[in-house]
Amino acid sequence: MRDILDAVAAGDLSPAAAEARLRGYATTEAGRFDAARETRRGVPEAILADGKSADETADLAATSVETTGRAVVTRADSETATTVAAGLPSAVDVDHDARARTVVAHAPDFEPPTLDATVAVATGGTSDAPVAGEASVIAREMGATVEWIEDVGVAHLGRVVDVLDVLRAADVVVVAAGREGALPTVVAGLVDTPVIGVPVSTGYGFGGDGEAALAGMLQSCTVLSTVNVDAGFVAGAQAGLVARAVDDGRS
Amino acid sequence: MRDILDAVAAGDLSPAAAEARLRGYATTEAGRFDAARETRRGVPEAILADGKSADETADLAATSVETTGRAVVTRADSETATTVAAGLPSAVDVDHDARARTVVAHAPDFEPPTLDATVAVATGGTSDAPVAGEASVIAREMGATVEWIEDVGVAHLGRVVDVLDVLRAADVVVVAAGREGALPTVVAGLVDTPVIGVPVSTGYGFGGDGEAALAGMLQSCTVLSTVNVDAGFVAGAQAGLVARAVDDGRS
Amino acid sequence: MRDILDAVAAGDLSPAAAEARLRGYATTEAGRFDAARETRRGVPEAILADGKSADETADLAATSVETTGRAVVTRADSETATTVAAGLPSAVDVDHDARARTVVAHAPDFEPPTLDATVAVATGGTSDAPVAGEASVIAREMGATVEWIEDVGVAHLGRVVDVLDVLRAADVVVVAAGREGALPTVVAGLVDTPVIGVPVSTGYGFGGDGEAALAGMLQSCTVLSTVNVDAGFVAGAQAGLVARAVDDGRS
Amino acid sequence: MRDILDAVAAGDLSPAAAEARLRGYATTEAGRFDAARETRRGVPEAILADGKSADETADLAATSVETTGRAVVTRADSETATTVAAGLPSAVDVDHDARARTVVAHAPDFEPPTLDATVAVATGGTSDAPVAGEASVIAREMGATVEWIEDVGVAHLGRVVDVLDVLRAADVVVVAAGREGALPTVVAGLVDTPVIGVPVSTGYGFGGDGEAALAGMLQSCTVLSTVNVDAGFVAGAQAGLVARAVDDGRS
Amino acid sequence: MRDILDAVAAGDLSPAAAEARLRGYATTEAGRFDAARETRRGVPEAILADGKSADETADLAATSVETTGRAVVTRADSETATTVAAGLPSAVDVDHDARARTVVAHAPDFEPPTLDATVAVATGGTSDAPVAGEASVIAREMGATVEWIEDVGVAHLGRVVDVLDVLRAADVVVVAAGREGALPTVVAGLVDTPVIGVPVSTGYGFGGDGEAALAGMLQSCTVLSTVNVDAGFVAGAQAGLVARAVDDGRS
Amino acid sequence: MRDILDAVAAGDLSPAAAEARLRGYATTEAGRFDAARETRRGVPEAILADGKSADETADLAATSVETTGRAVVTRADSETATTVAAGLPSAVDVDHDARARTVVAHAPDFEPPTLDATVAVATGGTSDAPVAGEASVIAREMGATVEWIEDVGVAHLGRVVDVLDVLRAADVVVVAAGREGALPTVVAGLVDTPVIGVPVSTGYGFGGDGEAALAGMLQSCTVLSTVNVDAGFVAGAQAGLVARAVDDGRS
Amino acid sequence: MRDILDAVAAGDLSPAAAEARLRGYATTEAGRFDAARETRRGVPEAILADGKSADETADLAATSVETTGRAVVTRADSETATTVAAGLPSAVDVDHDARARTVVAHAPDFEPPTLDATVAVATGGTSDAPVAGEASVIAREMGATVEWIEDVGVAHLGRVVDVLDVLRAADVVVVAAGREGALPTVVAGLVDTPVIGVPVSTGYGFGGDGEAALAGMLQSCTVLSTVNVDAGFVAGAQAGLVARAVDDGRS
Amino acid sequence: MRDILDAVAAGDLSPAAAEARLRGYATTEAGRFDAARETRRGVPEAILADGKSADETADLAATSVETTGRAVVTRADSETATTVAAGLPSAVDVDHDARARTVVAHAPDFEPPTLDATVAVATGGTSDAPVAGEASVIAREMGATVEWIEDVGVAHLGRVVDVLDVLRAADVVVVAAGREGALPTVVAGLVDTPVIGVPVSTGYGFGGDGEAALAGMLQSCTVLSTVNVDAGFVAGAQAGLVARAVDDGRS
Repeated sequence: MRDILDAVAAGDLSPAAAEARLRGYATTEAGRFDAARETRRGVPEAILADGKSADETADLAATSVETTGRAVVTRADSETATTVAAGLPSAVDVDHDARARTVVAHAPDFEPPTLDATVAVATGGTSDAPVAGEASVIAREMGATVEWIEDVGVAHLGRVVDVLDVLRAADVVVVAAGREGALPTVVAGLVDTPVIGVPVSTGYGFGGDGEAALAGMLQSCTVLSTVNVDAGFVAGAQAGLVARAVDDGRS
Repeated sequence: MRDILDAVAAGDLSPAAAEARLRGYATTEAGRFDAARETRRGVPEAILADGKSADETADLAATSVETTGRAVVTRADSETATTVAAGLPSAVDVDHDARARTVVAHAPDFEPPTLDATVAVATGGTSDAPVAGEASVIAREMGATVEWIEDVGVAHLGRVVDVLDVLRAADVVVVAAGREGALPTVVAGLVDTPVIGVPVSTGYGFGGDGEAALAGMLQSCTVLSTVNVDAGFVAGAQAGLVARAVDDGRS
Repeated sequence: MRDILDAVAAGDLSPAAAEARLRGYATTEAGRFDAARETRRGVPEAILADGKSADETADLAATSVETTGRAVVTRADSETATTVAAGLPSAVDVDHDARARTVVAHAPDFEPPTLDATVAVATGGTSDAPVAGEASVIAREMGATVEWIEDVGVAHLGRVVDVLDVLRAADVVVVAAGREGALPTVVAGLVDTPVIGVPVSTGYGFGGDGEAALAGMLQSCTVLSTVNVDAGFVAGAQAGLVARAVDDGRS
Repeated sequence: MRDILDAVAAGDLSPAAAEARLRGYATTEAGRFDAARETRRGVPEAILADGKSADETADLAATSVETTGRAVVTRADSETATTVAAGLPSAVDVDHDARARTVVAHAPDFEPPTLDATVAVATGGTSDAPVAGEASVIAREMGATVEWIEDVGVAHLGRVVDVLDVLRAADVVVVAAGREGALPTVVAGLVDTPVIGVPVSTGYGFGGDGEAALAGMLQSCTVLSTVNVDAGFVAGAQAGLVARAVDDGRS
Repeated sequence: MRDILDAVAAGDLSPAAAEARLRGYATTEAGRFDAARETRRGVPEAILADGKSADETADLAATSVETTGRAVVTRADSETATTVAAGLPSAVDVDHDARARTVVAHAPDFEPPTLDATVAVATGGTSDAPVAGEASVIAREMGATVEWIEDVGVAHLGRVVDVLDVLRAADVVVVAAGREGALPTVVAGLVDTPVIGVPVSTGYGFGGDGEAALAGMLQSCTVLSTVNVDAGFVAGAQAGLVARAVDDGRS
Repeated sequence: MRDILDAVAAGDLSPAAAEARLRGYATTEAGRFDAARETRRGVPEAILADGKSADETADLAATSVETTGRAVVTRADSETATTVAAGLPSAVDVDHDARARTVVAHAPDFEPPTLDATVAVATGGTSDAPVAGEASVIAREMGATVEWIEDVGVAHLGRVVDVLDVLRAADVVVVAAGREGALPTVVAGLVDTPVIGVPVSTGYGFGGDGEAALAGMLQSCTVLSTVNVDAGFVAGAQAGLVARAVDDGRS
Repeated sequence: MRDILDAVAAGDLSPAAAEARLRGYATTEAGRFDAARETRRGVPEAILADGKSADETADLAATSVETTGRAVVTRADSETATTVAAGLPSAVDVDHDARARTVVAHAPDFEPPTLDATVAVATGGTSDAPVAGEASVIAREMGATVEWIEDVGVAHLGRVVDVLDVLRAADVVVVAAGREGALPTVVAGLVDTPVIGVPVSTGYGFGGDGEAALAGMLQSCTVLSTVNVDAGFVAGAQAGLVARAVDDGRS
Repeated sequence: MRDILDAVAAGDLSPAAAEARLRGYATTEAGRFDAARETRRGVPEAILADGKSADETADLAATSVETTGRAVVTRADSETATTVAAGLPSAVDVDHDARARTVVAHAPDFEPPTLDATVAVATGGTSDAPVAGEASVIAREMGATVEWIEDVGVAHLGRVVDVLDVLRAADVVVVAAGREGALPTVVAGLVDTPVIGVPVSTGYGFGGDGEAALAGMLQSCTVLSTVNVDAGFVAGAQAGLVARAVDDGRS
């Protein structure tokens, strides 16, 4: 602990970074940033932009880069993305994925992890893309190779068959689907790797807002596990954890 | 009205049959039998055995044969089936379908309707058979040709493809499915005729007892209509009404 | 395939139309337009304006006209309708139904299908009109003759009786009803053709937003099938599929 | 109070009757019997047989007769009815209504109230009869004239029209209906007196066990009030209270 | 019918009034106004301002005054109230109750009904006042004398006791209550007249938006009937129907 | 630890008691008995008889007495009570409360805790007694003085007033109520001590099985906390913890 | 009563304060302020700013200070806080807690109660702070010493262990937690004082808006009681009542 | 195909085994046994004994052994286990796990798969053991090494800490928990491998039957995926698929 304090005194370590090392989180005006989570599970701590102002998000993102070398922002609109980028040193590499609504920033000296494992992320339709995109970004940030497969809705079986090779080549598959949510079941009937379903909050009337999709995945007559409605981050991170376990075997 | 009463007086018409013609229903110890419904819509009035004693069911079945020349009993266990058969004149033709849990009785002079139209009835798995069987019996009693297609679960797409010709040749398709209830969606994506989904009360936990299947059918991203959970009778009768409309065009 | 590419090269076919023929859908900035669906089931692919900007909708509508000769937009407010019309060549015939909130566009050389079959569309009250109107437009675009019957609420039985002849003359009936949703049951008790109920998201408190109406239709003591709350498109398309089956018999 | 105790001492008043007068309820082995409720609202205190043994019910019924001159037992099967009758002095007049599942006992000197007002009780179908019967018995015990109207289901509008005169002649109408529960709405659209709807726990699947009927009555587009599912007692007593208010005006 | 048309020709009757007499409703730009409902049940046809523009509401109100001599508008904000008043002839008497959010207009020659009966309307708290106010206005427009009792919440029993005389003197009592909705139960335990409970959509979390109140009233251990959440109009009209039945007895 | 093992070797300590001291729980054929819980919170570890055979329950009860000097069994029918008593040494004092469905056993040398604090336990009606009884037994076993107050239903306010002195004299009040569950609200409006509500699983139809009562307590317009439906044990233990906190102040 | 009126006449007592003493509440334009509640239970009557204009809230706050010497406003945004402060005499001490969204005002002569008891208030995460803050303010206003413990989420057990001493030293603990709501269970397993759980309306999808947290607290395998979702006021007041009971013992 | 038929003719292959190879499933009296599923995903096809007679289950088990060399029966009571064993050739190795309610049979020549990967299976309490046991058996049959960890309930954090090394050494962790279902969250906060939660249908009242546990796992503030309530088979198979992916890397 003494050396950390010495480093702060010497100006080699910011107070926030020091606090993060000593307490596991850093305190900012906009709340605490939990730097220790990444250390604990290898899952990057994401900053959820929903419900925060653009400035608060940018503040936390800057703290995240300062303490961990990286920031991952989810549910970010373009104004937030611009504000986050503006709040970071120019040397930081910032990537805004508009469809996934994510902002990822890497400090110049950040070395992203790499895993020898592939995560396939498939969507049933256009409206599933934001949720699936979030899963995709998180899995990639954890080091996995990500294969993106779009619009393979269950009402058009031909499309599923077209991408079967890609699905089967992956080590783990994330499938995002709204409405009746049957796509994870169909995919899991065709591959022999773990499938993680993500219900998407589309639909209307009875079973709308993702409830039918969630129920359908939980009732699936095949083997798959699921996460909560729209939980793209959780699905991507769980796939990343599987990928890392696979990589552990390979390396 | 006078001639009906004359016929009763002459013994040519039973009081029950006379009551049915005059009032539209016949009164028995076990309740009223609604003979007029068939006249109104061409849908045979079914006697639901669930919640009735075997004797009550047999009583109503005998009245039904007496007044309309036919009885259709649903949700009948074997004891009920035996009691119903025993309570009918020996000339009556009785057919007990154990899987569909139906008993159908035709008086010697009953002329069943015939329609120049085909209803396909498909199931996702073994546990959907009773509900689909009920639909099948009702459609057949309304005069349709019925094609029975079994065990084409959505987790085994190959099976669906195997029966595609039969499905496409039908004028209307009834699809019964439990658990996640995705089969009607898959089928409706492959045929160009009306599809009627029937959720089946299988499943457990969240969305169990047919709720996930119902929600999935209502949320389907294809075009289909649905009926309540386990409503095999309603699905079969609706398919029969479509078949009759088609037959009207053909004849 | 070669001739398609030749036609593109020669300028006889737009790239979007070529993509639609080769892949079954065309890609635009606003997403994919699924031209193949109409080919598969004869149901026009509708563009749901809800949740899209007026420009995105207009973009998809233009692609739809280009690739299939027709565009059907649902849930369109007047601004969207104007934008859609403005984005189409002047030779295209555009029809905006304000109550049904639909825009239908036909290219000059588009030949709409015609079916020798009638769909009756009935509403319980003024607030059911948008949903019923959507059903009506879809059934008409599929070629059916549509009879429109308004305000025959179950609390005023006399009105139902007044339109009985029209209801009975149709080959299939769509009934839209909110609140307690009893109208489809009453109608189905009076006609001998298939009835499709559409619950409408009116009502408040317990069972509001169409849930009571949906439950009432699923529990109906007559024979009818139903679709999800506010699913006017699905009901109209299902009625159109029945109409086409009837027409198949007639022609 | 002294005279009550004197009467007990003299054997002119049983201890239970004395307790009921002094404390408002009498204590038995099977629980307390609340004799004061009748005094408070004029609604007879009913003994719910469900969940009690036949002996416990008989015990409470005997106490009720002893303290108020009357016993009203609901949800009684025939064994309970027999046990109740056996437990009462032979001079007591006992009436068991098997369909309504009620037992009513009057002591020889009991003078039932009479009201110059009529309650109509209507059912949609055979399975609504027990609930409607309970309502009917309670209203009659409160002194109203009761008109019983059976099987006027909403799917057969003709039957409703047949009984319109009886419905319109009543001062208040109770309508019991299961499944989609539309009958109270239809009736309330045809009469100008208060209508009280009672949902009945029939039905299955979505909205089963009376939920669809309850929701439908609460969403009714006419004016009516409702009670909980199967609450025949409450509906009958509320109708009795209205009848008494009307009688107050008349007398 | 001829004399109606003659009157129109002579300018003695407006076309709208003529249409209302001949067809039972009048057509306006903003929808149909159902003039016949009042004739059928004596319940004034209310115009629900929610979901309509101020101009549409004013349009319907003017038609209502023209055809029935009266307009009753519910859920009206002050802008709507002003617009309604501005759209009526100056001779019309307009009363805007801001708390009840109602506007009532009487034509100069309108003779309001009068009933020899009293309706008490009680609220549990300030937030119940709009719903109770609506009930109060409707009951008064049906001719009843209305007693208004405010803020007698169940957590302050003393207040209930203070108003017991007024409650007991009424012929029928409407009790509006949100949160746990226990007030109707407490009141019904203290009076011997019919009590109609109205759940109010207050509350939050589990059982919020009036669901706990509705459930509590349906589960009440006393005798009362209920209406849907916030259904002040229905409760007031049902109380008015009871008042009229009482008045029938008295007159 | 050595002395524990020495005691076992010397036969002064049973192996089960030794295991309980060393690991915090004892292993039996019927599962683990968690002896440490009492040490942790002072709440006796109860043995839930529901879902266990009488022998399994007796086995666990014997282990409990052996390791802690006491056994508390809940939800015990009389057969279980008899079996438990038979399985204990004759010197053990066994108390079976039939209404509360509890069995409490004290070893001869067990010194029950005593607290200088009073818990009042009140019920709305007879059917609340088992749940309230369970609360009462637990609070007493934790050392509190318990005041039992019965049948103070909210529909009979007079009864509540009769017991106000007892309620106000207690340090903490537990109120068990089913149906609409309003009693805790009424009581909390009259006392100035903490009130803990326990919903009871009575009621039927909408809000039945204790849901209306739970919702009503959570929505209460007074200050109270609640526990789950039928959770008499939890309510009694929470009241016991408050009583102990009060006793801490007093002693 | 005479001396109160004399005081008013002499100008020593405002009319509002006089009304509050005589009737238990004071009437303002914005509604009634219930001054008697504090007298009854010692719980300050809070003014809920949600759903009121800033002016209405300020009006009630001024009345509260005038009649009781104190005002406690909850769910106040900064605009409301400013308006409330501006509406009070300058001698009044006003404290706005932005995170807890409360405003507390003390008149110069107000003597806040003090209790010899400690309430610990713990949160699982940043988003639980407003609800926990409200609890904290209320407990402090009732006189308790409050210990604030932040961000001890169940996914980071180390943090809980760090604050164990503070938790164990308190007389009663309030734990606010959203999402899965497990923190109260973990805390209650570690302390031997009463724990009151407050579910917070975070979360999304299935079990969102605090439902999972509420269910988890009601299902807890430890002893704790709970309040409704976001009911920080109720939890704080209940903790305050426990603290007062403890103080009663101590003093 | 010819060689299969030749083998049947020669008696070297049973007709059932031949059918299984040719069609992917074998037909028995008790239904179809889906032999192909194992080939497709490596997940053994389990025979669910619930809802089947002991004889039907034994029949399917015999077919399973005949066609795949193995049978896995779930939810089997001891009678079923005995019947299954009796129906198999004596050379078959049969293992009945009473707590997991499974029966596993291996033909003499069956070579079970082995994976170089470990699955940890943890339970929160005794009542979670059957569900966790099912998961454990399936994972072992897929070839994984299984570590069994019992009774590490969240209310006793010390127990979790005791087994941390075992949890961290596993490649994937299955955690079964009922009631509030917080254990998977606590475990996932302590390990860096994938965690799969299984809600167990314990609990009562609000959130009972596993709903609170399911909601809690879906709302978890850590990363985990879940399966439906009591879906031990699915959880074990998903863990097995992860283990196989890990093994693929290792081998």
